[in-house]
This record gives sequence, C-alpha cells and structure tokens, in this order.
Amino acid sequence: MEITLASIADIVKGEISGDGNQKIRGAASFEDAKGDEITFASQSKFLKKIDETDAGAVIVPQNFQAPMKNIVQVDNPQIAFIKVLNLFHPALKPDYGISQDAYIGKAFLCGQDVSIAPFCAIGDNVTLGHRVVLCPNVVIGDNVIIGNDVKVFPNVTILERCIIGNRVTIHAGSVIGSDGFGFAPEGEKYIKIPHTGIVQIDNDVEIGAGNTIDRATFGKTWIQSGVKTDNLVQIGHNVTVGENSLLVGQVGISGSVKIGKNAILAGQAGIAGHLSIGNNAIVGPQAGVAKSVPDGETVSGSSAMPHRLWLRVQRILPKLPELGKKLSEVDRRLKKFEEQQNKSNGGENG
Amino acid sequence: MEITLASIADIVKGEISGDGNQKIRGAASFEDAKGDEITFASQSKFLKKIDETDAGAVIVPQNFQAPMKNIVQVDNPQIAFIKVLNLFHPALKPDYGISQDAYIGKAFLCGQDVSIAPFCAIGDNVTLGHRVVLCPNVVIGDNVIIGNDVKVFPNVTILERCIIGNRVTIHAGSVIGSDGFGFAPEGEKYIKIPHTGIVQIDNDVEIGAGNTIDRATFGKTWIQSGVKTDNLVQIGHNVTVGENSLLVGQVGISGSVKIGKNAILAGQAGIAGHLSIGNNAIVGPQAGVAKSVPDGETVSGSSAMPHRLWLRVQRILPKLPELGKKLSEVDRRLKKFEEQQNKSNGGENG
Amino acid sequence: MEITLASIADIVKGEISGDGNQKIRGAASFEDAKGDEITFASQSKFLKKIDETDAGAVIVPQNFQAPMKNIVQVDNPQIAFIKVLNLFHPALKPDYGISQDAYIGKAFLCGQDVSIAPFCAIGDNVTLGHRVVLCPNVVIGDNVIIGNDVKVFPNVTILERCIIGNRVTIHAGSVIGSDGFGFAPEGEKYIKIPHTGIVQIDNDVEIGAGNTIDRATFGKTWIQSGVKTDNLVQIGHNVTVGENSLLVGQVGISGSVKIGKNAILAGQAGIAGHLSIGNNAIVGPQAGVAKSVPDGETVSGSSAMPHRLWLRVQRILPKLPELGKKLSEVDRRLKKFEEQQNKSNGGENG
Repeated sequence: MEITLASIADIVKGEISGDGNQKIRGAASFEDAKGDEITFASQSKFLKKIDETDAGAVIVPQNFQAPMKNIVQVDNPQIAFIKVLNLFHPALKPDYGISQDAYIGKAFLCGQDVSIAPFCAIGDNVTLGHRVVLCPNVVIGDNVIIGNDVKVFPNVTILERCIIGNRVTIHAGSVIGSDGFGFAPEGEKYIKIPHTGIVQIDNDVEIGAGNTIDRATFGKTWIQSGVKTDNLVQIGHNVTVGENSLLVGQVGISGSVKIGKNAILAGQAGIAGHLSIGNNAIVGPQAGVAKSVPDGETVSGSSAMPHRLWLRVQRILPKLPELGKKLSEVDRRLKKFEEQQNKSNGGENG
Repeated sequence: MEITLASIADIVKGEISGDGNQKIRGAASFEDAKGDEITFASQSKFLKKIDETDAGAVIVPQNFQAPMKNIVQVDNPQIAFIKVLNLFHPALKPDYGISQDAYIGKAFLCGQDVSIAPFCAIGDNVTLGHRVVLCPNVVIGDNVIIGNDVKVFPNVTILERCIIGNRVTIHAGSVIGSDGFGFAPEGEKYIKIPHTGIVQIDNDVEIGAGNTIDRATFGKTWIQSGVKTDNLVQIGHNVTVGENSLLVGQVGISGSVKIGKNAILAGQAGIAGHLSIGNNAIVGPQAGVAKSVPDGETVSGSSAMPHRLWLRVQRILPKLPELGKKLSEVDRRLKKFEEQQNKSNGGENG
Repeated sequence: MEITLASIADIVKGEISGDGNQKIRGAASFEDAKGDEITFASQSKFLKKIDETDAGAVIVPQNFQAPMKNIVQVDNPQIAFIKVLNLFHPALKPDYGISQDAYIGKAFLCGQDVSIAPFCAIGDNVTLGHRVVLCPNVVIGDNVIIGNDVKVFPNVTILERCIIGNRVTIHAGSVIGSDGFGFAPEGEKYIKIPHTGIVQIDNDVEIGAGNTIDRATFGKTWIQSGVKTDNLVQIGHNVTVGENSLLVGQVGISGSVKIGKNAILAGQAGIAGHLSIGNNAIVGPQAGVAKSVPDGETVSGSSAMPHRLWLRVQRILPKLPELGKKLSEVDRRLKKFEEQQNKSNGGENG
C-alpha cells in the first residue's frame, strides 16, 4: 500500500509542512521508521531529536516546526498516528461465516456478518449482534447476549446469562462469569453459596488475556463502558468497575468492591473486599488497599497510604538500619550525661 | 415457582413467627428482596435494621424476634438461606449425554448420567464416575480417573494420570497436572527435570477459574478434601493443601509446601518453597511467607511476621519520616549539651 | 523395565563402586526409593545420611565414598539422574497423526511425524517443523511459524505471525501474542493502539501454564533461547527476556522491559515499564522493581533495594514499634536535662 503524505494529512486533519507528494508505504516507531514510512513525536524527548529519525514524515503537535523534515501538525499526534496505523494494518475480516465445525445450541439469534470459528460451542438461547467475531474454541453459555462489533479471542469462556455490550474485545483465555468465591462455614467445612447473578460488560470495553471475572451472588458484576483491563486480572463477584477505568496486569479485586470512573489500578495491586476506589483515583503498583480511596487520591504501598507520604517512607526505609544505630548512639551519649549528672548530684548531696 | 413460608420452614427445619401461608416466589439479598421474596439476616448490622428490608420473609437466628416481620428462626441462617437458594435456582442438568462432537479415546469407562459436551477431548483409559459433567472444550489426558458428581467447566485441562475425587468442581480455564517448575543447572543452561508424579484432588474440592496446579516430581501434589481455591491461584509441584483450607485469589504456593487443615491464605499471598503452614493458620493478603507458620498463627506482611506485630509496624510506618526528623533534632539538642559540657570542662581544665 | 546398574553407569558415564549386576527397575526420590530403584544425592544433607535411603543404588558426586551402598560416581549427580528418569519414563509419542477432527487452514506446511490432536484450529499459511505435537484444543493463528520438536499443551493459543523456535514447550492454557496493553488517552476515553508486532520465542524455551505473552506494538516481544517461565507469568509488549533467564510463578513484566541473560526473577516479582534487568541479576520474591538493576546485582523488597540492605531493613522492621518508644523516651530524658539547664541558667542569670 502506498499513499501520499497529503492524503494522510487529509485523513488525520493535519497541516503539512514539507513535501505533500512524499510517498508513504508504512508506519513505524520513531527509532525504526525508514524513508518511506511515517512516525509520530509528541513527547519533548522525541521532538528534540526529530532530525535523528529516518522516517519520511513525522506527525507532530500543532505549532511544532522542523524545517529539515516533512511534518504533519495535528492536535493529538498519538491519536493521529493510530489512525494511520489502522490504515496500513486494517483489522482482518475473518471469513469463516458460521463454521460447520462449530456447535450451535437451540434458539440461536444472530445479526449480519457474524463469524463463528471452528470448535466454538454456543449454548441455547444465545443472541449475537452484527459483525461479532468468535475465534476458535470460544465457549458461550446459555442465554448469553452479545452486542455488535464484538471480538472474542480463542479459548475464551463466557458463561450463562452474561451480557456483553457493543464494540467489546475479550482476549484469549479469559473467563467471564465464573462463580464468585463465596462459601458459608458450617463447622469445619464450607458450603457453597449459589451465584445466581451475572457479569455485565458495557460498550467499548477491552478485557485482556487470562482474566477471570466472577458473576455476582445476586444482581451483577458490572464492567462499565470504556474500561480496559490488562492480562491476568482477577475481578471478584459483585464488583463494579466505573467508566474508562484501567486495570493493569495481575490486579486483583475482591468481592463487592466499587471502583469509580477514570481510575487507574497499577500492576499487581490488590483491593480488599467491599471497599470503594473513587473517581480518578490512582492505586500504585503492588499496592495493597485496605481502606477506601477518595476521589482523585493517589495511594501506594502495602498497606496503601497517600502516595506522597509513601514516597517519603520509601526514602527513609533503606536508612532504617543507620537510624537504628544512631538512636542507640544517642541513647548512649545521653546515658553518659545522666551518669555524670547523677555523680555530680551525688557529689552535691554528699 | 411459588411455595409457602411454612414449606420453606419445613425444608430448613426452622420455626415460623408470622404468616406461614405467605407465598414466596424467590430469594434475594437483604437490600433487594421484594414482598414475595425471602432473604436472611445473621449479622447484627442486618438484624438491627430488619424492618428496613422489603422482603416478604426473613430467615433469622434462633431467639431473634421481629414482630413486624414474617421470620423463620434457624440455627444457621446463612446455611438455611443457601438451601432456599438451591430450591429456587436448582443446578441445571445438561442434557448432552455424550456428544457426537466430543473425542473419546480407547478403553473409556464411565458411570451413569454422564454429560460430555462438544469438543471435549478425552485421552485413552479414562474413567469417569456417575453424573460427571464435562462442559465444552475440556481436555482430559490419558489414564485420568474422575469420581462421581464432578463438574468441569469449559476450557479446563486435566493432564495424564491425575485423580479427581467425588463432588469436585473445577472452574473454567484451569490447568490440573502441568509439569512443575524444576530445572537442573548445567553450566549456563537448565535441563528439565521430568515430572513423573500426579495431582490428586480429593472429595468436595472446588478449584476456581484460571488456576494452575502442577504435578509432583515424584508422588503427588495433593489437594485434600474440602479445599476451596479462588481464581488465578498457582500451586507448585509436590504441594499438599490440607482439608478445608481456603486459597484466595492469586495466591502463589511454591514447590513442596505443606499447608495444614482449615488454613486461610488471603489474596495475592505467596509462600516460599518447602515451608509448612500449620492447621488453622491464617496468612494475610499480599503476605510473603519466608518461614514456616505454626498451627493457629496469623501472619501478615512481606516478609511475613506475626499479625499483631505487623499491625503495630503498619501503624508506625507512615510516621517514619517524622521519627527520622525527631531523631535528628534530638541528636542536635544533645550535641548542644555536649558542646557546652566540653566548653565548661575546657573552662574547668583551663 | 529392568536394567543393570552397570548399564546405567554406562549411560551416565559414571563409575560404579559396589555391585554392577544389581537390577534396577525404577528411579525415585531419596526418601521413597525402594531396593530395586535408583536415586541420587548431591547436596551434603543427603550425602551425610546416605545409609538411610532404601534405594538399591545412589548416584553421587565424584570422589564420594559409601562402602555400604551401591554407588555411581559422576560429575553432576542431578543431571545424571535426569538421564535415568528419562530412561524409565520416556516421553510418550502421541499417535494422532493429523486428526480428522482438527481444523487446518489454507497453505499449511508441516514436517514429518507431526501430531495434531482433535479440535486444534490452525489458521492459514501456518508452518510446523518436524515432530511438532499439538495437544487437543490448541489454536494457532494465521502465518505462525513453529520449529522442530515443539510440544504445545492443551488449550494454548498462539496468535497470528508469532514465531516459535526448536525444542520449545508451551504448557496448557498459555496465550502467546495477545495485544499489548496500549491505549492513548483522548479526553476521558482511551483509544486502542494497534499492535502490529509479534512474539518471537527462540530455541529450548519452556513456557509454563497460564502465561500471557503480549505481542509488540512494533517489532517483537522476544523470549530468547533457554528461557524457562513458571505458571501465570505475565510478559508485556516489547519485552526482551535474555538467554537462560528464569521467571518464577506469577511474575509480571511491564512493557518494554529488557531482561539480560541468566537472570532470575522470583515468584510474584513485578518490573515497571522500560527498565533493564542486568545479566545474572536476581530479583527477590514479591519484589517491586522501580529502577533498573545492574548486571549481577540481587535486589529485594517493594520498592526493590540491594538485597543485603533489604535484609538489614527486614531485621529492623519488626523492631520499629520498640524503636519508636525508645525515641520518645530519649526525647523525654533529654527534655528533663534541658529544663534543668534552663533552671540552672535562669538561676545563674538571676
């Protein structure tokens, strides 16, 4: 595929400075782009060294100048570059149709241009919207409803009655709708609490690979629109994850936690049961959150504390052995005084 | 489904105070139950506000009174409520029989009322007991033995020679019997140690979604009866997990660890190799256990320490920056004294 | 199977002291080996009690003597024992050939003695080398290339264009080539960054069960030769893991991290994005690495610090409550002095 820089500028609604007739044949990273490829630079560390890239053209922020380069000025270079990437790497349209090698249950309803790969097993009363893609070996339970433009990668399991919105992507190996970890003690044993609820995933959600999202005891575990999860994330029963929140790799969220909108939970963080994480809150990597986090707050550490305080604690931790010594030394010096004082008092009293 | 409160009281062996003719059409949570539904209250926080629930009836502890409500008094309200839930939501009986779309190896033996879904692949010499349910895309290796009333969810893998007891549930995507992480260094490289052992899972065990349980080098990795694991739990080779122990989400257990009975390992805890965790021991969330834990002890922190000590350490950690400052200040004040003393001694000596 | 000790000595290139005609019928652990089985002892704790094993023969280091036992002296007893284990437990050759129940895409190329189990789904333009074994329900995307002597366990997903070398093992449920966790913020929402790169896995790599290895944004996520990963390991986009490095269970590696050769990352450790972990570096269990680790260094803790320092900090942490009290006490004693001094100065001045 070959396209002129002028056409690209048109697509990303940018302004060219340089040669609009330049032929562009691909998109690549700042370091690796070649003379017939386009890249982007938005951070100052890349903008500073813009003359070092071999790229034939660079997408840059408005007002940025680079006389030696063909540039395209836009509001948001990264978003513009994503558009260009999608141009050169259009999502492949699988052409399975509904494979003869898939198993489809009773009362199946589906929209147009659906692709169901071999060895998908679909239960009874399942509804799929338009342009749904089920990759090989996907299992869909009874009474599941899936919206339009959903892509489900291989070996994913979506269990009975779960509801998936539009434009949702679920990566390979993930499990949606497993039973929550709920058991009632009876003597030394545990009796299983039936999980009669569901998982509901709203529009524009992307679920990473190897996730496990438990269904609610009653009601729903709810992943709201725009949420993105990384790989191996665990979401317990009755959790709500608010709009546009990000859950990074290996995050674990206990049952009945409520996460607000636009929150970010960094890698391997864990949230104890029944807590709230506020809107725009940030939870640091490996943080262990044992009490609720207010809107907009950033917490770190295990147990988690306000991030700024944690930074100061982190700085002092490696000095603890030294501080311990110092304290012993101060104590010794003070004792010396006290002994002198005692003697001197003894002398005075004597 | 509709049933009188009197019939429910009969089933849960409880005593009614109120209207035994009340029609009950469902079971729901304390907050959400409607006038024709039943709920339960056992914790005092719910019992206190029993008049706030709209439920048509409430299962309560013996001796608890609520004149304005239809109540059923029982020994254990939660267990009684689970019975009612199972009444309204009976486990679905899959009716696949043995699907034409499953692959079954040689010398297959199975009991009555077995359900094997499409795209299950079963190796040679496999034995299944009565009423086993294999959901779609389950893979069972050669020489595996599975007991009665076992349910295996989609995309689970159970590898060769593993032994599964009665009334076991294995949730979607879990792997039973992968090789242990054992390699012998030879120069800069690592040579694989063959894993000739198995995984044995005893009766009444529930394994969460996305678990990985490694087979033993020799002998067996052993999950004893009544154990419940949450999602994404990792259990290394040659581990023993004692009866009725609970492993919460994302727990990781290194090779050859021995966990006692009725222990609880909270979320994201990790146990180093070859340690023992005693009977009734509790390991806190995200704890990193580097030495064995005696029976009945609770540990927390990474590295783990007795829980009460850890609580005190947790309280002091955020104060460390302040304590560091205080120590510097004390040191400064003491120095001032020492200088005066020196001067004064100098004066005396002069 | 039965073989003389002399034949075993021949195979492992060892020297016998004792009865070369001893019949050996199996290999087992030091504790469990019986009179017709062989075991090994290399650590001094086993060598010391060599007379306690019931094993009919013991593989020991060069120069080690045990007059009461049949021994075989070798350079590396563990490696020699692995050879014997492989003798008694030869890897099973699956005999599926290419199953009629597998789905094979267009333009499929494969070598000799390939085994493809039922319900494997193979995309278009896939190439497999000789003696590749695909267990049931493996999914291989379009344009994947796999070398010789590769074993892929059940329910593994390898997505489009990934490249797998020779003698690679991938355990059950793992996902190779999922999209990286890359999203560009646009207002309150996140726009997906297309991941056009691949995962490349070199020779002699073993990937544990339930791993997730993301493809690169551009270029490749690269697992170099000899790397071994344990279960539930997460490897982000554009990561490089150097030759012969070990990643223990539940390790999480953020995007663009570069790990050197022969490094060891212990269980549940997490590495922040864009860092380097040096050759022969060791990262302790549950460590949270927030800055790069030089060659040969060992770090521990969250946030990670040099291991020796961390050990000292670990020792002092449980003493913090006591140290806090001590500091208050010292402060109080010092104040007493200061008050006396003030009085006495006051007296002098008065």
